[in-house]
Amino acid sequence: MKVDTLIINADLFTMQGDGVGYIDKGAVAIERGKIIEVGATEILKNNFEPEETIDATNKMVVPGFIDAHMHTHLSVIRGLAQDTKKWMHKGIGPFSDFITDAYAFPSSKMNILEGLASGTTTFGDYGNGMDDVASFIYKLGARGRLTTTVREVPEVLDQLQEEDLYPFEKAIGEKTLNANLDLIEKWHGKDNNRITTLLGPQAPDFLSTDLLMKIKKIAIEKDLKIHMHTTQAARETKQMVGRYNKRTIQYLDELNYLDERLIAVHMTDATNEEAKQLAESGATMTLCSGSIGIIRGEVPPVKAFLDAGGVSALGSDQAPGNNCNQIINEMKLTALFNKIKYDNPEVMPAWKVLRMATIEGAKAFGIGGEVGSIEKGKKADITFIDLASKAMLPVIKKPLRNHVPNLVYSARGEEVCRVMVDGKTLYLDNEFLTVDEDSIVKESQKLATELTSQITEEDIQITKGLEYMRENKL
Amino acid sequence: MKVDTLIINADLFTMQGDGVGYIDKGAVAIERGKIIEVGATEILKNNFEPEETIDATNKMVVPGFIDAHMHTHLSVIRGLAQDTKKWMHKGIGPFSDFITDAYAFPSSKMNILEGLASGTTTFGDYGNGMDDVASFIYKLGARGRLTTTVREVPEVLDQLQEEDLYPFEKAIGEKTLNANLDLIEKWHGKDNNRITTLLGPQAPDFLSTDLLMKIKKIAIEKDLKIHMHTTQAARETKQMVGRYNKRTIQYLDELNYLDERLIAVHMTDATNEEAKQLAESGATMTLCSGSIGIIRGEVPPVKAFLDAGGVSALGSDQAPGNNCNQIINEMKLTALFNKIKYDNPEVMPAWKVLRMATIEGAKAFGIGGEVGSIEKGKKADITFIDLASKAMLPVIKKPLRNHVPNLVYSARGEEVCRVMVDGKTLYLDNEFLTVDEDSIVKESQKLATELTSQITEEDIQITKGLEYMRENKL
Repeated sequence: MKVDTLIINADLFTMQGDGVGYIDKGAVAIERGKIIEVGATEILKNNFEPEETIDATNKMVVPGFIDAHMHTHLSVIRGLAQDTKKWMHKGIGPFSDFITDAYAFPSSKMNILEGLASGTTTFGDYGNGMDDVASFIYKLGARGRLTTTVREVPEVLDQLQEEDLYPFEKAIGEKTLNANLDLIEKWHGKDNNRITTLLGPQAPDFLSTDLLMKIKKIAIEKDLKIHMHTTQAARETKQMVGRYNKRTIQYLDELNYLDERLIAVHMTDATNEEAKQLAESGATMTLCSGSIGIIRGEVPPVKAFLDAGGVSALGSDQAPGNNCNQIINEMKLTALFNKIKYDNPEVMPAWKVLRMATIEGAKAFGIGGEVGSIEKGKKADITFIDLASKAMLPVIKKPLRNHVPNLVYSARGEEVCRVMVDGKTLYLDNEFLTVDEDSIVKESQKLATELTSQITEEDIQITKGLEYMRENKL
Repeated sequence: MKVDTLIINADLFTMQGDGVGYIDKGAVAIERGKIIEVGATEILKNNFEPEETIDATNKMVVPGFIDAHMHTHLSVIRGLAQDTKKWMHKGIGPFSDFITDAYAFPSSKMNILEGLASGTTTFGDYGNGMDDVASFIYKLGARGRLTTTVREVPEVLDQLQEEDLYPFEKAIGEKTLNANLDLIEKWHGKDNNRITTLLGPQAPDFLSTDLLMKIKKIAIEKDLKIHMHTTQAARETKQMVGRYNKRTIQYLDELNYLDERLIAVHMTDATNEEAKQLAESGATMTLCSGSIGIIRGEVPPVKAFLDAGGVSALGSDQAPGNNCNQIINEMKLTALFNKIKYDNPEVMPAWKVLRMATIEGAKAFGIGGEVGSIEKGKKADITFIDLASKAMLPVIKKPLRNHVPNLVYSARGEEVCRVMVDGKTLYLDNEFLTVDEDSIVKESQKLATELTSQITEEDIQITKGLEYMRENKL
């Protein structure tokens, strides 16, 4: 049978079954962007006549990584709100007014390339200006699963104390919901579902109950998922208790918001009991270990969530406080932070976080039927890792295989040598095949310099940052 | 004045003073491997006529990183003892008999290249077969500060339970001490102190009081530092209490072992009070965040140690349980693990861990007078980071600089574009200039395959590893 592409001789980790689904000298046949057969090279070589053969000898081949939660528009201020408490109000808050779409978008592009070059194939970007991001991801050839932020709180967080209840403005809610609906209208399902969209109420404390219920109604009508920051910090709990006299999960439960439509991001301030309640409701989770570790020094209750049968994706969140946007980093930090939290090196083994980065992540993000494993009938989103990389050497196959632990604990991103979406190679040996990296880098740098040149010391509220700048500690 | 090399236009982080010692458009004049002037490019360009000019425009230039604790010989089994309790006895223990010098050395070389390519200039390797390692580092041109393991415990750990007191064999002590003395005799001070050596009693529970005292006497006579694993785990504390009825720090204190000659590695099981006692004694510390996080799920009391005025280096430890050997990773994990331990994002800011990787590390490791900062009179061990790397973009200089947070929280190692030791470039744009990487990679892989082909499932005791292998989770 004729096919477009045959990958052969791979150290193939299909993620089929409940482990990593390893096939030695594995092969994958791809036709029109879809995987039509997976198996031994010897067999597939006999059964298929490929247009293109990709010899993956000494390559670890895995499903493309799912980054289920990013705010790429914030990468224009990567590294500017660090090592500080009150990160949201006083850290990034003061910069927010300055970051218009025109400044943010070039860095968003840079950030997406950073992820792709580290093996991410699905980008769960979340913010404003998503139409531009959608166009870029569409052109790049990657998979986008995008969300517009819907909120009723004006840009005044930097003027508030954390104990002040946020003001709500109905007009902002209408405007942002309309932007979300426009995104959905224009992009949802584009190019055979390569670009899809979600509804994005920012967080239970950022919009009124009315608007939250309106969004839920739309979600049901349009059959969409709801991508929402949920119990993201003690700060949110204070708002919820102050306004409704109840904690987030109880509030959402009473609104019938806890079901398989909800993707709850962060869960930082959830108790183990609340995590369990969420898992049992069918809602899924997105864990952003790096960003929550850096900006809060906390480890969300993902173990309690998984133990209760929940499914969680990984997300890289935002650059002024993660600071990198790539999933290999998230796998490593998720494994390590949880070992430390539970004082137990057997907690969160490598295979478990690799599943969260691939098949579990795809399920949690609502695209488990299409991607997340290398499996007959799924789309060919595939990441290749060069096993001759210094961090992956030596490669050992018996008596134990060391690929998965070394990918999680040793690899850094640069080992990724090929990234494919819908069967099409987008990145190969440090080159992007569909966009011009150089011009994106230059534009991103130029606009970041222009943006930050407008910001003075007086605008900044991150006390630690200014103190460090004055003391020559930055 | 004529000089060998002039580095110009750098975003220069000298680490002078108590911060990061930043100089915009900085320059460094180097003559015969030594830094003879540091300052503004405009001024130094007028004062020096260089043989070679290195234009460091858009490069972050920092002192070469100090990796004060490595066991490169174990990298031949990278990734084989993971996600398991009883790592030392049941994890790497069963492999130990198989790892002869002939198998270990090629992987040691690979491992040292991994570190160099990530900006490490000083390699604190610790193990057996150090003569070969010294020869390789000498040839490579890097800085070696090497230690032979001295112990009296035979290779029987995998046959013991953790509660059994280790047997001591005097003959093993004599043999290993002689090997340590041979290393010192042959290498200490070689090439104008580029290779130096230390005394290496493995840990207080691995040799008798007599041998420990003998080593201390030699240290004083020869004016050498003692590089010793100290309170490295609860396992050690059990041995000490079982044998001497006291904890490690009290035992060492009574032996007058706590002074500026001691470099105490790990300190995992030390209380904050013991960490303070150690700091006040003048002893220094080496912290291996990555390895202790992975193999024990613990965060050593480095904050208590630093708060009490102690000085600590960073170390990458060993590959079957870290798994990478590079200091950018150690900076990041040190900052993050401590934020989490103290539930406080302001703990261990980026500048502090960068100091541990450079100037504080050099001081803790006993070479603070020679390297660790870019400073007149010091040796020119310098690492260049490409600011056009995806993980470092955009570069911002005002109102806050973002170089240091992005190096610590975002960079992964591949951003290192040039590494210089004693003023000589050893690594440039992915190429090693003094050794042939290809042949080292091939040899390392070949011998690792040969080694592991001798090991059967029956030899392995890592229950989790075998279980995972059978369940297709590796």
